[in-house]
Amino acid sequence: MRRGAVVQMRDASTRRKRPTSHVDNAISAALRAARTTAAAEARGVSGGAHPMLRCPDMKSHTSYLTLNLPTRRAFLNITQEVRDAVEKSGVREGLVLVNAMHISASVFINDDESGLHHDYDVWLEKLAPHAPTSQYRHNDTGEDNADAHLKRQVMGREVVVAITAGKLDFGPWEQIFYGEFDGRRKKRVLIKVIGE
Amino acid sequence: MRRGAVVQMRDASTRRKRPTSHVDNAISAALRAARTTAAAEARGVSGGAHPMLRCPDMKSHTSYLTLNLPTRRAFLNITQEVRDAVEKSGVREGLVLVNAMHISASVFINDDESGLHHDYDVWLEKLAPHAPTSQYRHNDTGEDNADAHLKRQVMGREVVVAITAGKLDFGPWEQIFYGEFDGRRKKRVLIKVIGE
Amino acid sequence: MRRGAVVQMRDASTRRKRPTSHVDNAISAALRAARTTAAAEARGVSGGAHPMLRCPDMKSHTSYLTLNLPTRRAFLNITQEVRDAVEKSGVREGLVLVNAMHISASVFINDDESGLHHDYDVWLEKLAPHAPTSQYRHNDTGEDNADAHLKRQVMGREVVVAITAGKLDFGPWEQIFYGEFDGRRKKRVLIKVIGE
Repeated sequence: MRRGAVVQMRDASTRRKRPTSHVDNAISAALRAARTTAAAEARGVSGGAHPMLRCPDMKSHTSYLTLNLPTRRAFLNITQEVRDAVEKSGVREGLVLVNAMHISASVFINDDESGLHHDYDVWLEKLAPHAPTSQYRHNDTGEDNADAHLKRQVMGREVVVAITAGKLDFGPWEQIFYGEFDGRRKKRVLIKVIGE
Repeated sequence: MRRGAVVQMRDASTRRKRPTSHVDNAISAALRAARTTAAAEARGVSGGAHPMLRCPDMKSHTSYLTLNLPTRRAFLNITQEVRDAVEKSGVREGLVLVNAMHISASVFINDDESGLHHDYDVWLEKLAPHAPTSQYRHNDTGEDNADAHLKRQVMGREVVVAITAGKLDFGPWEQIFYGEFDGRRKKRVLIKVIGE
Repeated sequence: MRRGAVVQMRDASTRRKRPTSHVDNAISAALRAARTTAAAEARGVSGGAHPMLRCPDMKSHTSYLTLNLPTRRAFLNITQEVRDAVEKSGVREGLVLVNAMHISASVFINDDESGLHHDYDVWLEKLAPHAPTSQYRHNDTGEDNADAHLKRQVMGREVVVAITAGKLDFGPWEQIFYGEFDGRRKKRVLIKVIGE
């Protein structure tokens, strides 16, 4: 299934939300001065040293995708959205977590091949059939989606992917999918990037 | 199933276990002094500058839950214990890993609805029946829990959850469960928080 | 199955790839000096203070294992390779992600017991049979490995393991396995360590 207007992205960057106060400005200026001084000293120019430790900057970034798929079950490639979030984060080395925020949906990594997606659908329906809905106690609550909660456990809630040199560190065929098992309403996917 | 006396928590905070030596005390005092000086300078008050880089403090925190469930199979909501660990960690942006430390148990995220838990139990027993125990070679070793090792693979070993603004970044129905498939003895769950 | 010549490891350490410039050398030397000064001051010896914030150093490390298993399906213990990568990383507190980079293979944690591995193989073949290959649309593309893509979803793509005090923080029987479902060719596993 192709990506369309169904995906919306909202970002909540949390990369050093420090208030730019007078104090911080003074510290930044002093830091630049200290580096200059240390560089000068390294060239044999003496002066009042202001030694300084260079800090690998830990960063984090959060994005939320909103999806609204028109069918009960579907698979949607969200790899590009995850790439966009990683790029925005500025993280060069780290991890990105991508998870369904709803408990009748999955995020998983596999092949972008429509025949395989058909096979998944047939197979999951065999392992955890939707009908008869009365076979599940969960459906006594008025729901008809118990099977979706079972299918999601087979396919998984989340993936964690390595970021190396600023990119998703992927094998040749790895693609990230959102797996919907109880669609026709708004759902969300969380993308959380942490690293340096 | 309700949480009771079955859960015990032990913390091993690793948030900067630096020994409080004279050196560290001196550094801390100097750091406070430097900030004061920088603030004074920002207001136009001159003095010997002590430039300082503010460091996003990478933190980690480890907790262990000990559980002893009275039945062979059970599901236990451990969301509050994970929340407690996240709060203790002081992490505002990061990830928390929650995993079963035993290979016949799961940690997973789904709905806190007893009908659904019954459905999971019936379904897992159909996918990987306990009896006859002789159908599994693993049970030739004297064990009778081969089915538990299979069930745990369907439900998963671990979850990784985003922490945003100091809280578990959860969708509306997400709850964290310990899934026991070979109970009636002490088992442990690990909670590891990392972030800033 | 025993580990043999089938596993090759390549490291891509990304632990502070900072160029060792004159500036960096000067900063390092100045930092050592500042600590000495602060220590001296703590003992009542006065001098020009060089206050310094001790920075928890965020580290990351990436390793790739290359495997070439002689059979279609197999399980291989890769725990020692993951331990080696964690040791090389220098990370004391953090997380390690281990994932198959191919979509017809798994990385999972369970028992190193050959009877259980036999049980997994029989069980997965029952849940997602290899033959007849014509039952899967994915195999219309010329492949015969659709079943491998299904089996891998049951066993999972990846594990995330806590690192505490420089070691894999494992329960008594946890071991990391590579699960091959379409072997007889080169495949890779990624190991990504992040932490402090």
